[in-house]
Amino acid sequence: MGRIFRKAAMVLPVVLTAGFAVAQAQETAPAPDTTFIFNTLLFLIMGMVVMFMSAGFCMLEAGSVRSKNAAAICLKNITLYAIAGIMVWLVGYNLIYGGEEGGYYGSLAMWSADDSAALDTGYSAGSDWFFQMVFVATAASIVSGTLAERIRVWPFFIFTAILTGFIYPIQASWEWGAGWLDAKGFSDFAGSTLVHATGGWAALAGAIALGARKGKYVDGKSVTILGSSMPLATLGTFILWLGWFGFNGGSQLALGSLDDSIAVSNIFINTNMAACAGVVTVVVLSTLLKGKINLPMVLNGAIGGLVAITAEPLMPSIWLAVAIGAAGGAVIFFVTPLLDAMRIDDVVGAIPAHLCCGILGTMVVPLSNSDATFAVQALGVGANAAFVFGISIVLWFLLKFTIGIRTSEEEEELGLDMAELGAPGYDFPVNIIGSPTVPAE
Amino acid sequence: MGRIFRKAAMVLPVVLTAGFAVAQAQETAPAPDTTFIFNTLLFLIMGMVVMFMSAGFCMLEAGSVRSKNAAAICLKNITLYAIAGIMVWLVGYNLIYGGEEGGYYGSLAMWSADDSAALDTGYSAGSDWFFQMVFVATAASIVSGTLAERIRVWPFFIFTAILTGFIYPIQASWEWGAGWLDAKGFSDFAGSTLVHATGGWAALAGAIALGARKGKYVDGKSVTILGSSMPLATLGTFILWLGWFGFNGGSQLALGSLDDSIAVSNIFINTNMAACAGVVTVVVLSTLLKGKINLPMVLNGAIGGLVAITAEPLMPSIWLAVAIGAAGGAVIFFVTPLLDAMRIDDVVGAIPAHLCCGILGTMVVPLSNSDATFAVQALGVGANAAFVFGISIVLWFLLKFTIGIRTSEEEEELGLDMAELGAPGYDFPVNIIGSPTVPAE
Amino acid sequence: MGRIFRKAAMVLPVVLTAGFAVAQAQETAPAPDTTFIFNTLLFLIMGMVVMFMSAGFCMLEAGSVRSKNAAAICLKNITLYAIAGIMVWLVGYNLIYGGEEGGYYGSLAMWSADDSAALDTGYSAGSDWFFQMVFVATAASIVSGTLAERIRVWPFFIFTAILTGFIYPIQASWEWGAGWLDAKGFSDFAGSTLVHATGGWAALAGAIALGARKGKYVDGKSVTILGSSMPLATLGTFILWLGWFGFNGGSQLALGSLDDSIAVSNIFINTNMAACAGVVTVVVLSTLLKGKINLPMVLNGAIGGLVAITAEPLMPSIWLAVAIGAAGGAVIFFVTPLLDAMRIDDVVGAIPAHLCCGILGTMVVPLSNSDATFAVQALGVGANAAFVFGISIVLWFLLKFTIGIRTSEEEEELGLDMAELGAPGYDFPVNIIGSPTVPAE
Repeated sequence: MGRIFRKAAMVLPVVLTAGFAVAQAQETAPAPDTTFIFNTLLFLIMGMVVMFMSAGFCMLEAGSVRSKNAAAICLKNITLYAIAGIMVWLVGYNLIYGGEEGGYYGSLAMWSADDSAALDTGYSAGSDWFFQMVFVATAASIVSGTLAERIRVWPFFIFTAILTGFIYPIQASWEWGAGWLDAKGFSDFAGSTLVHATGGWAALAGAIALGARKGKYVDGKSVTILGSSMPLATLGTFILWLGWFGFNGGSQLALGSLDDSIAVSNIFINTNMAACAGVVTVVVLSTLLKGKINLPMVLNGAIGGLVAITAEPLMPSIWLAVAIGAAGGAVIFFVTPLLDAMRIDDVVGAIPAHLCCGILGTMVVPLSNSDATFAVQALGVGANAAFVFGISIVLWFLLKFTIGIRTSEEEEELGLDMAELGAPGYDFPVNIIGSPTVPAE
Repeated sequence: MGRIFRKAAMVLPVVLTAGFAVAQAQETAPAPDTTFIFNTLLFLIMGMVVMFMSAGFCMLEAGSVRSKNAAAICLKNITLYAIAGIMVWLVGYNLIYGGEEGGYYGSLAMWSADDSAALDTGYSAGSDWFFQMVFVATAASIVSGTLAERIRVWPFFIFTAILTGFIYPIQASWEWGAGWLDAKGFSDFAGSTLVHATGGWAALAGAIALGARKGKYVDGKSVTILGSSMPLATLGTFILWLGWFGFNGGSQLALGSLDDSIAVSNIFINTNMAACAGVVTVVVLSTLLKGKINLPMVLNGAIGGLVAITAEPLMPSIWLAVAIGAAGGAVIFFVTPLLDAMRIDDVVGAIPAHLCCGILGTMVVPLSNSDATFAVQALGVGANAAFVFGISIVLWFLLKFTIGIRTSEEEEELGLDMAELGAPGYDFPVNIIGSPTVPAE
Repeated sequence: MGRIFRKAAMVLPVVLTAGFAVAQAQETAPAPDTTFIFNTLLFLIMGMVVMFMSAGFCMLEAGSVRSKNAAAICLKNITLYAIAGIMVWLVGYNLIYGGEEGGYYGSLAMWSADDSAALDTGYSAGSDWFFQMVFVATAASIVSGTLAERIRVWPFFIFTAILTGFIYPIQASWEWGAGWLDAKGFSDFAGSTLVHATGGWAALAGAIALGARKGKYVDGKSVTILGSSMPLATLGTFILWLGWFGFNGGSQLALGSLDDSIAVSNIFINTNMAACAGVVTVVVLSTLLKGKINLPMVLNGAIGGLVAITAEPLMPSIWLAVAIGAAGGAVIFFVTPLLDAMRIDDVVGAIPAHLCCGILGTMVVPLSNSDATFAVQALGVGANAAFVFGISIVLWFLLKFTIGIRTSEEEEELGLDMAELGAPGYDFPVNIIGSPTVPAE
């Protein structure tokens, strides 16, 4: 019953529903089966769109790495999605949703569809599984971007299996599985913390364990390493933006009532406006403070805005959504160089976008949702940080000191495409030694 | 109430509905809430698909410019979508829909969702806003393609803000806001004129103000400048084709009745067939008249067919839809060189595709829709032309003589990626000086 | 009435429906119009997603050919989709569905929408047409990949017209048109045989008639010819994976009841798990047996798993779906080199993926669907093989000895982009003579 708890917790605010009290009399409401079909359809359509985010991450990352590492990052992205699907089925789903209320983890039972009392749950079990599964894959996609260009494929796959089968599910059970965080009153509508910060913490731990790419920090200075294809990186960002309508809109978890359909609409708008504001903020800040506009940062501005609105895309006014998105963009602009100054080499900037903006988004929920308090939000952020980062850093170092996680210097120089896959990612000559550098301004 | 007028004006023709008169008795119809949810869902799904057209335009344009300008065009495309979202919220939406019947513009009030009488409107206010907003972004995307490779980013952003906040909304209010053109009986189902010609006129004005790319016209002859990536241009076209199902299908503005769902289906078919015919027409004409098949023109053939059917995708028989699409393809084939001969440098051929085929599509509406007359259609085309081109040309020259709109010769030679963004769009060496030219036949 | 037969034949297994016998009393069921709208919406949404598979095939193929052939394969892919749309309208659709029960082909009448008794059919005629049309395009897309880099465009277009207008429709009528194979009890839910093996046989016949690419087999050894862009090939695979939810999920042909919506959900899961298992299987086999992981084969692992589950994506348990997908991955891994040893040059590996996994998928249907028998499944596979391969091989040789199907050696060396289109697909220098080869291991 944990599975339906999340939905029950997301009743529309009184102010929205009051107006319909009379109008929504019995005779205008959909038949129960109709509501069931609408809810199921929401999960299926939005789940498809979120599934496509895997392609978005893949293109963003393939465009952001050097040409010599483009095929390897593609391999990691499609395989991580496959691993996530299998792990969520084998163990992850029931670990999230199979626990008792107020608990710390679900059950270790494998998942299988149970539609024996379908009408009571309000949607088909399979559609819900599909929707939740693609969320888990999203978290894993975040990790691959940060660690690109130097991590070996198999250690990455092993970490992915544990992340998607255990780490993500256990912490998600605390909230979405009606566990202890939920009991405390934590609020994270579509997963600023549960999905994005989780991916971000796992990525940060990996970046620390792996170290920076060869040539990234030279003589105490950070070197800009150019990505192979800005069009592909931009395409990836557009796909992620598209996918976020499914990510946040589907997290309403229901469509089959007047109120739910209105809620999904408002979520779409807030989601979109936050991304718009993130883009414009980075464009303006870049122009004012740098003179030139950094495209990868603009793309991350969209993602930062999207991550920031994800913890509460329903309740904010459009003004607030714009402000939250703009704050996300500002985080991208100011935090990215800070991380770089700390020698944390994050190839696609996933840590500012998913971790920092994830925390930001979670902490601003009380601005629009009076059920949330800053203290409890901070508790959730902290618990997530301690658990995910703690387990991840141990795991990464365990992998490092056993099978090893990093390619050799020669392999890194040669590129992971030749080293790990035995073939280049492009058929034209790409830069193997070094890469074009940006002329000094 | 202007907002619901458009829908009311689109009742299905008698011939289609007559057959259901008896069958559709009260007991078989959906409950009112169900209809509401279907309508809302149509806006949301189709709106998502139309939103994705922004990625389509971006890929089409990134593939059509030279490698040295690929990142800059990506920046323009993602930022224009962000600007459109903000401007449509701040002023555009109510400027379209907030006016009085027969008027010339809507209200300047900012938009906020009003679902206090949701059942009466038949769909959630937010879903409609989202769907209309992505239409405005489409018009702005058209402009960026024509002006690529030489326009500076900030003047382009300023023009985009005015286009999406004022120019598009005011002329759209004439028809979709139940304004004076609508009162005259003008018909433009999904926007051959209101969206596509609008984008086309704004692009043409910009092309005149900007002038041609350096090296485009040499010694009185037009030089073919090759695009960076035909696969990306093709991907963009496929995405646009996909998006057009949302563009035209969603413009039925309702799904929640037997007739509406049948109408959306027929719109899908006519939309698809027009694009098919556009492609085949260009393939055949190219083969017969040129010997070789020009891929960029084939891609534009699809777009031309799609734009041409957009003014009336519901009423034509499939035969007529094929003919309209074929005419669109022919326009692409014959008008593109004419524009070139006039020294109008349109990087992606957006003027033939969106402006010329938009006019074509608007003028053939009376062939299938007896409510429309050629005279009124011509009036609408002319009014749109005068207003959009008139304002745009003034605005472009104003920008030209104040902040300047064009990069310097050196910057253009270097490429806008280095000049405006400070970094290349690809990490392998691209052609900076000149570009490969097509060998003489 | 053949059109509705297929749906009627797909009643849910007793075990799933039994639980709802009581719950689904009259008063909870959707109104008839609501069911109609849901069914229509399923066709439209899933049809859009399947339409997008054309872009997926295009990107997979563009990324798998050499840079000098990238534009030509894009031209083939967008044009084949256009041809398929026109041919299915002119003759194909009624050739599939217009026949008598137990017959061998449908009628030659052109299709036009007939919604005069819409409620009786349960969905709008146009939505069904659209959904079936995109299936036909899929089969044609399979052929273009195998024959890339050496076939001339016009012979390919002519073959495509006959394939989509006649070959596919006639054999599809045997089963989906309620023809003789259906009467025998053959079972092919979404087309492992009817769509994928059909495309595969046509491709195999073409590969035999065409011969291998110049330089593919040298001194009795097979040379690895690298694709132009692994990111594009990966993007294409992700798009196909996405599209398959529409392909299999839409093939439930109904959404508007509790059982149908549950069935679509379970189809989504089995479809996804088979693809996951295909990917993981190839990754594991590659690592164990080769040391390095071959990305193109991993991508084909996903497709092989998807094709294999397509004949019966509803009935298998998740365990069985995983096993079927893994078997598909294994087929890719072991059959691809076998074909190569037989000197059958299949540029994208479409024959192992679509033909071999299509047969595999068809033959394992009896494992989960007790209505199917191995004997009848084999009969269907054999009849499809004899008919499609037989007609195709005759047709290809007819084309070969009349207008010719292959570019000259010089043109092949130069690349089809320059030879057939007169312009390169990229604006940077690509390899014309030869291509980078993989260093000896």
